[in-house]
Amino acid sequence: MLKLVFLSFLLLILTCNASVQDFCVADLMGPESPSGYTCKSPANVTATDFVFTGFRKAGNTTNIINAAVSPAFDAQFPGLNGLGVSIARLDLAPGGVIPMHTHPGASEVLLVVQGSIVTGFISSANQVYVKKLLKGDVMIFPQGLLHFQINGGGRTAVAFASFGSPNPGLQITDFALFGNKLSSALVEKTTFLDDAQVKKLKSVLGGSG
Amino acid sequence: MLKLVFLSFLLLILTCNASVQDFCVADLMGPESPSGYTCKSPANVTATDFVFTGFRKAGNTTNIINAAVSPAFDAQFPGLNGLGVSIARLDLAPGGVIPMHTHPGASEVLLVVQGSIVTGFISSANQVYVKKLLKGDVMIFPQGLLHFQINGGGRTAVAFASFGSPNPGLQITDFALFGNKLSSALVEKTTFLDDAQVKKLKSVLGGSG
Amino acid sequence: MLKLVFLSFLLLILTCNASVQDFCVADLMGPESPSGYTCKSPANVTATDFVFTGFRKAGNTTNIINAAVSPAFDAQFPGLNGLGVSIARLDLAPGGVIPMHTHPGASEVLLVVQGSIVTGFISSANQVYVKKLLKGDVMIFPQGLLHFQINGGGRTAVAFASFGSPNPGLQITDFALFGNKLSSALVEKTTFLDDAQVKKLKSVLGGSG
Amino acid sequence: MLKLVFLSFLLLILTCNASVQDFCVADLMGPESPSGYTCKSPANVTATDFVFTGFRKAGNTTNIINAAVSPAFDAQFPGLNGLGVSIARLDLAPGGVIPMHTHPGASEVLLVVQGSIVTGFISSANQVYVKKLLKGDVMIFPQGLLHFQINGGGRTAVAFASFGSPNPGLQITDFALFGNKLSSALVEKTTFLDDAQVKKLKSVLGGSG
Amino acid sequence: MLKLVFLSFLLLILTCNASVQDFCVADLMGPESPSGYTCKSPANVTATDFVFTGFRKAGNTTNIINAAVSPAFDAQFPGLNGLGVSIARLDLAPGGVIPMHTHPGASEVLLVVQGSIVTGFISSANQVYVKKLLKGDVMIFPQGLLHFQINGGGRTAVAFASFGSPNPGLQITDFALFGNKLSSALVEKTTFLDDAQVKKLKSVLGGSG
Amino acid sequence: MLKLVFLSFLLLILTCNASVQDFCVADLMGPESPSGYTCKSPANVTATDFVFTGFRKAGNTTNIINAAVSPAFDAQFPGLNGLGVSIARLDLAPGGVIPMHTHPGASEVLLVVQGSIVTGFISSANQVYVKKLLKGDVMIFPQGLLHFQINGGGRTAVAFASFGSPNPGLQITDFALFGNKLSSALVEKTTFLDDAQVKKLKSVLGGSG
Repeated sequence: MLKLVFLSFLLLILTCNASVQDFCVADLMGPESPSGYTCKSPANVTATDFVFTGFRKAGNTTNIINAAVSPAFDAQFPGLNGLGVSIARLDLAPGGVIPMHTHPGASEVLLVVQGSIVTGFISSANQVYVKKLLKGDVMIFPQGLLHFQINGGGRTAVAFASFGSPNPGLQITDFALFGNKLSSALVEKTTFLDDAQVKKLKSVLGGSG
Repeated sequence: MLKLVFLSFLLLILTCNASVQDFCVADLMGPESPSGYTCKSPANVTATDFVFTGFRKAGNTTNIINAAVSPAFDAQFPGLNGLGVSIARLDLAPGGVIPMHTHPGASEVLLVVQGSIVTGFISSANQVYVKKLLKGDVMIFPQGLLHFQINGGGRTAVAFASFGSPNPGLQITDFALFGNKLSSALVEKTTFLDDAQVKKLKSVLGGSG
Repeated sequence: MLKLVFLSFLLLILTCNASVQDFCVADLMGPESPSGYTCKSPANVTATDFVFTGFRKAGNTTNIINAAVSPAFDAQFPGLNGLGVSIARLDLAPGGVIPMHTHPGASEVLLVVQGSIVTGFISSANQVYVKKLLKGDVMIFPQGLLHFQINGGGRTAVAFASFGSPNPGLQITDFALFGNKLSSALVEKTTFLDDAQVKKLKSVLGGSG
Repeated sequence: MLKLVFLSFLLLILTCNASVQDFCVADLMGPESPSGYTCKSPANVTATDFVFTGFRKAGNTTNIINAAVSPAFDAQFPGLNGLGVSIARLDLAPGGVIPMHTHPGASEVLLVVQGSIVTGFISSANQVYVKKLLKGDVMIFPQGLLHFQINGGGRTAVAFASFGSPNPGLQITDFALFGNKLSSALVEKTTFLDDAQVKKLKSVLGGSG
Repeated sequence: MLKLVFLSFLLLILTCNASVQDFCVADLMGPESPSGYTCKSPANVTATDFVFTGFRKAGNTTNIINAAVSPAFDAQFPGLNGLGVSIARLDLAPGGVIPMHTHPGASEVLLVVQGSIVTGFISSANQVYVKKLLKGDVMIFPQGLLHFQINGGGRTAVAFASFGSPNPGLQITDFALFGNKLSSALVEKTTFLDDAQVKKLKSVLGGSG
Repeated sequence: MLKLVFLSFLLLILTCNASVQDFCVADLMGPESPSGYTCKSPANVTATDFVFTGFRKAGNTTNIINAAVSPAFDAQFPGLNGLGVSIARLDLAPGGVIPMHTHPGASEVLLVVQGSIVTGFISSANQVYVKKLLKGDVMIFPQGLLHFQINGGGRTAVAFASFGSPNPGLQITDFALFGNKLSSALVEKTTFLDDAQVKKLKSVLGGSG
């Protein structure tokens, strides 16, 4: 008897709660809003939506920078849509470099889990903050500031970068300047780089103009 | 000549920028506000302020839960004050458990870096989402919901939890119910637990009343 | 003449303003985003959309807890979608209890309008803050922390809880632990409760496993 | 033995948590920041800080508007500083009116607990939304829009207004226009009111110029 | 060779980035959410979406207030949807006035680019802050407070108002009181204005009731 | 009599409001928090605090870039502290350039008030959006993305940039790379620029290492 009464109360509460959304798993095919993707129906959400397994194996570092960035942002990991956090895996083979870049939308916490990494950022006041991180060390990079990572030793380094946004963005300075159709004249005028230097990097990075 | 002129422009800009604060390294002795600690003077900030080295060694798991939580929140890692992110290290010896808990102030991204972890959360709509995570796997826990971690295998597991706040808080349900002076009568009335059960756990967890 | 000129100016302004959205009455059938429901067309909005009349009569307290929670969150009161506030009515018959629970998404202001209520919360630092509130008294519960309400007298108590979010969520600890399919083994491992206790409450609250 | 080991773990956790701030009870004498007052030391906080008892008796309505507004904003109720909510009590004797006003900083949820109230707001698109609320009815007023309350019946009405900010502000149009030193010339030029009307209300409301 | 390898890395990164949304150009025909309009597909976005040319010519000031407000909010300038800023042009012929008004959703920075403007605001604490601005001067108006602008000289004045929201709203007090169907009785009761005054302005501004 | 009664009500309200803070004029000597500077006492605030007159004359463009940036951020214009907006003046003599830069903390609305400006930004997805703006034209630059301005004609151009933050920051790429003590080796490794190019610009911009 007691049980039945309680159950009816429970059902009552659950009916109310059925519409509560603690999360908003992204419907990647739906419309996007400034706050993120629209939500998959809660009825279709399963535990799998909240798990990302893409970091089980290392990123492919057989490229010119000997490094790889594997993001688990909302587009790759729909479960964190709207929840204010995301994460990415960095692999740096010996000699590997994540070139100078910014995340326009969030601050970053970097955690080294293998090897060592020389990393740093430059502030708006033009100060430089550089450190060598060992396994287990963490560094914070304030939102939107230029920073970089370099493998600091002779073995492959692995790190994870966490962000205070499901979609922090990533702007690699070299790609922004030399990897698109921004004209060489505009690049030179706005960076004071020499024409030969700009054209050389445009050629390497596939830029035109 | 060109150089001198440019330098004077640079100095002009730098003077303006000297007051720009991209970051706010916590002055732990200063007053706190709802947005976090007040800031250490930028003139006294060095690269060391942005690095946390407390995760180099494992947390001590020789305790009853065979597990340890080591936070790098703003109080432990002043450099991330005001920047919207933080991180904690979890060590779980074989049989180790991080008991049912919530973070009132932020969502969590959990990354397994060693061993395996069985983990899950319960939603407001009372749904259960449980998964076993292997090394490299990531799970997202929406803000404020009950969740737990259990070592999923025979060896020590290590994980890192990142949060979308420099101070997400941590409320372990058992400690909240049984580890303080909240009277047994109130605990029983509000949880429907039996008196013997409450008194037993209060005894184990050091609660009174 | 004056009037006509002014009117044309007015019309001009009104044309501009026609697209201004001070509010976003929820279209409960439309897609949801992390910031809430999409908006009903302003052309179809009337004063009725901004009024909720569901609190005119008391909630049904003839259940095992002798209490009822009636929410006016965005799903029940579409007019407050996106506006950062919501409200719920609490009815507690003599002996009534709102069991230990949290609101993952917002702080709560509780106002007693009839009878008296013993209420309190537990902080992340494991401190207990309990008070007996009389008619007219208000208590604040910080976001995401465990709290409870108990009828503090011999007559029915009525209170209203206001929240700093249109959808604060509600997680009742007992329902989360014992009212779903979370396995008894996992509950016991993560709460240190005895097997008999867990199974008893699972039976009462309709949980399985 | 078990108990001692657990206790030491508990103490470890508590040491970490000692710096966790779930709340920020206002130190009204300390410096204020854009996010609110600085915090009283948690060590000095008691349950009393989270309770406001100023609504136990009715506001004094023996004045020209036959009404009273009693706020429990952060300056009156320091416990809700930084927590994103606040509340105020409205008393309206028969014939009482809360004149046209706005809250610049938050949306409002109005709850009638005694009598009836005629209330409404005007949108940016110049639409009017007016309703008569009975006991138990709730109306939502979007942030910053002009609204008013009038006693809708023959007995005293009581209502509570909750806000999505600890400090929503209150700007009563009549006081802003006629109750200060804003010159009559400026008032007339910017409102198109007649000089006699402006001077009459300035006289009643204590304005000069 | 080097180039090819780099390019493949670049393509890899670009694939990831293809889903990154730094912006959310409004799809004015799509559903709206509390955070703004849903986004136009990035594939269809061009530089033109980020430019607004509607301020090239002056607003039409041949009306009773000898002034014009031309907004570039999200409805007029879809490119700034979700980006937290907007702008409007003000033209004030000699004698021109922007009547007393508020922006419910954002603070305003006013910049005078031609002529001079007498402007001011009234605070919640009922203080008046009035200044005459010359060309190049800037004034800040805190969110939601009553303010006005008057041409301060003998020639046409031009100013630009920037806002900390893509949709700050605009509520002109006179229009809200006298330019709609809000009944004269309600206006008089909530503003203490005389019946003749209310009816006169209702007549001028096209209000009924 | 009526007047006296009303006045006493007014005083009552004003007492309550005396602690309401619609604004928080920065006390530049006080402690800073993540939400901005602490507030000057409202009793000492005057209309002058809300006005900035530093844009009355043009910035000095007799430098190598033939351009000047004059910010009115919170450090220069304390009145906008905490209010979510700021503004800067740009002067570009013929041939003048504001070099490639980002604002880490806010989106920008650029308004051309004299001459013409060629300007553009590069997205995270590496797309380029460039336009020539004429007098009166406005362009929006999303938060944190690289952008630049070049005088587009034969006469001096003047523009104003408004931001959705009182302190958006400013990071000029060239200064960040070449104008400080970041070692040439690190610059080269993270940008792929040639050693000679880096050393040349370091020499021009005053960098060392």
